[in-house]
Amino acid sequence: MEASGALATAGGEATSRRQAMEELGRRARAVAPLLAATPTDRKNRALLAAADGLQSHAEGLLEANEGDLAAAKEAGISATLLDRLRLTPARIDGMAGGLRQVADLPDPVGTVVASDVRPNGLRIEQVRVPLGVVAIVYESRPNVTSDAAGLCLKSGNVAFLRGSSMAIRSNLAIAEVLRRSYEACDVPADALILVEDTSREAAVEFMRLSDYVDCLIPRGGPALIRSIMENATVPFILDGDGNCHVYVDRTADLDMAEAIVVNGKTQRPSVCNATESIVLHAEVAAEVLPRLVRAMPTVEMVGDETSRALAPSVGEADEADYGTEFLDYKLSVRVVDSLDAAIDHVNHYGTRHSEVIVTADEDSARRFCAEVDAACVLVNASSRFVDGEEMGYGAEIGISTQKLHVRGPMGLVHLTAVKNVIRGDGQIRP
Amino acid sequence: MEASGALATAGGEATSRRQAMEELGRRARAVAPLLAATPTDRKNRALLAAADGLQSHAEGLLEANEGDLAAAKEAGISATLLDRLRLTPARIDGMAGGLRQVADLPDPVGTVVASDVRPNGLRIEQVRVPLGVVAIVYESRPNVTSDAAGLCLKSGNVAFLRGSSMAIRSNLAIAEVLRRSYEACDVPADALILVEDTSREAAVEFMRLSDYVDCLIPRGGPALIRSIMENATVPFILDGDGNCHVYVDRTADLDMAEAIVVNGKTQRPSVCNATESIVLHAEVAAEVLPRLVRAMPTVEMVGDETSRALAPSVGEADEADYGTEFLDYKLSVRVVDSLDAAIDHVNHYGTRHSEVIVTADEDSARRFCAEVDAACVLVNASSRFVDGEEMGYGAEIGISTQKLHVRGPMGLVHLTAVKNVIRGDGQIRP
Repeated sequence: MEASGALATAGGEATSRRQAMEELGRRARAVAPLLAATPTDRKNRALLAAADGLQSHAEGLLEANEGDLAAAKEAGISATLLDRLRLTPARIDGMAGGLRQVADLPDPVGTVVASDVRPNGLRIEQVRVPLGVVAIVYESRPNVTSDAAGLCLKSGNVAFLRGSSMAIRSNLAIAEVLRRSYEACDVPADALILVEDTSREAAVEFMRLSDYVDCLIPRGGPALIRSIMENATVPFILDGDGNCHVYVDRTADLDMAEAIVVNGKTQRPSVCNATESIVLHAEVAAEVLPRLVRAMPTVEMVGDETSRALAPSVGEADEADYGTEFLDYKLSVRVVDSLDAAIDHVNHYGTRHSEVIVTADEDSARRFCAEVDAACVLVNASSRFVDGEEMGYGAEIGISTQKLHVRGPMGLVHLTAVKNVIRGDGQIRP
Repeated sequence: MEASGALATAGGEATSRRQAMEELGRRARAVAPLLAATPTDRKNRALLAAADGLQSHAEGLLEANEGDLAAAKEAGISATLLDRLRLTPARIDGMAGGLRQVADLPDPVGTVVASDVRPNGLRIEQVRVPLGVVAIVYESRPNVTSDAAGLCLKSGNVAFLRGSSMAIRSNLAIAEVLRRSYEACDVPADALILVEDTSREAAVEFMRLSDYVDCLIPRGGPALIRSIMENATVPFILDGDGNCHVYVDRTADLDMAEAIVVNGKTQRPSVCNATESIVLHAEVAAEVLPRLVRAMPTVEMVGDETSRALAPSVGEADEADYGTEFLDYKLSVRVVDSLDAAIDHVNHYGTRHSEVIVTADEDSARRFCAEVDAACVLVNASSRFVDGEEMGYGAEIGISTQKLHVRGPMGLVHLTAVKNVIRGDGQIRP
């Protein structure tokens, strides 16, 4: 009797969790048409009000964040994670600045992408419309709450957000400020819906709201990606790892190669567009590798036998090293004897994010760009340029490492879908 | 002992099935870069050779098809399904004609979609490239094997196909002809890989080849769609049901409305862009409904109380009728008293495929187009025009009812991804 009672309770809990999540989904879906029809100037006013709101409520936000930090310290999380979780007045100003910047960007909704008149007189227009309900699952950084909300609002989408339990107090406080600011500008508060239940089970239910969610974007590590691939029933855009390579070709300008590798590795090692691996043509490896070792004394390098022979400070790389996104002052090294071998290495170990060639030879550049399978291929430039702002989108909601819908940085325009509007004067099909 | 032995066998079978499927995935992935680099004229030659091959091997194909038909008859399948499964000389000519038509279409690969020069001198080009490996799961019709293979080859993609067990003999025979024709034109035979294991378990493994497949497109009914949503780990484009409505507005030209409804319902009732439901404004229902009843004597209509009062031959519709894609000579009817109620009805029961308004009022047309959430919205034209060929794509691989990547008919261009090619002269990020 007791056992079956417990089972019933567990079943009941799962059911009520699903029902609660579906209720949120219904709310999101209900508000989507209103947002789609909201004029640009009203969306902009709401974004500016939200930016002001974040700054004027900074104290309250910092207080909520203190609660998250205290709980995280108690749970013994690492200093790096604590730093990502922390809000400061400067970071709040940064969030507000982000919202103001989004208000300044052009509204993609309503743009006519293509038009055609068919021989039978039908006029076809492809018009950008909001995706509808955009679900985002993200990890500790609370600024994602306002960044994602801002991009969704500007593109006419409901932001349906599920942050981590670690940041729940901060996220709730930020969401509350945004929702009140929206309402004051005649934008429905439900333009931003934050899931309060941060359990793992709720996350799975969240990924399965196929009746209510048009697109799911994860911002987090491999475990999150894996969980989405396993559990999601809604269409998703994966923002995967960046195991980015720089290949230094036989003809490379070695000063340029050095600058590009140093910049890619050390300018901000913790981000997905940082350089994680170098592939050196054998004809230049003896010169360039020792230069790189001298230029980056704080970077640990691991490499193959040839590279270790050229630079004794290089440690031994195993198979896993070549496949790892270090996100740290660490770099893997491989020496190859042809462009073909370089392309093979990059395609084998790369994560289809961003790959660089340094070369003075146009044929090599062309072949690398054509044959390397990645969202972004770069010739003679740092991998760090793979970024929404640097590429002219103004802001990004992530970097897609899959091929459907968008590859590479995702800007406002990628939060829209294209609707086919077909106008006739009574045409029927013969 | 016996039980654990049986378990071990079952586990071993599952493992070997997974391994066999992964081996096919590896073959597909291995050939993808070769296909991506194959020049247009070689792809076209292979398509024309495949078309010739289908016609010159017609007898062998018909013989293989006889085997499928005999097995299907023995299994007692319906006459409709038998007809879909049947090959005839005319249908083989149709398949060959389809391949020749695809050879005539422009090659989307290499098209520059957008380009930009950033203030720091970086030149960014967005270039169309093949998706890579396109997996397609489809049901009984064997012509899909050559149609899908042709569109994939022209767009530089590996066609990784899994047809139904019912058509396996026909599909194998068609695939064999295509693969040999490809080889004779220096295109790798593995540009088309057909999965021979047609078990349900193999289908699930197929949907989970996330290391090898770039995009999965299902062509089949709701059970297949549900299985993909539940099991797939690869990104997919859903080709869902079309519960298409025609709304006849207060101001509609009633002759036009009649022609559009009759065409949408009866010109080819078995396809997804057929009209399944009509929504009539109360001010015109009394005139238009009896006309429609007279015009379509073979169509069974079911409707609400008002429509039944206006036309006694209309039966009673229940909730399920409004949500059903009949694919038959059957139509649901609803009378509404405003455009708002019509839009609500369409958004509630529609499947986001194709929705029609017949109206003389530009404001109503604009509101319907903006507020109805569907891949295609049509003003004063038959729903039957939602079709790749009619819309100018030349041929289609399906009709997307989701929002990511493509909405509505999918042509060659939608089998490509956009790669970001970034060229500099040594830029690093400050």
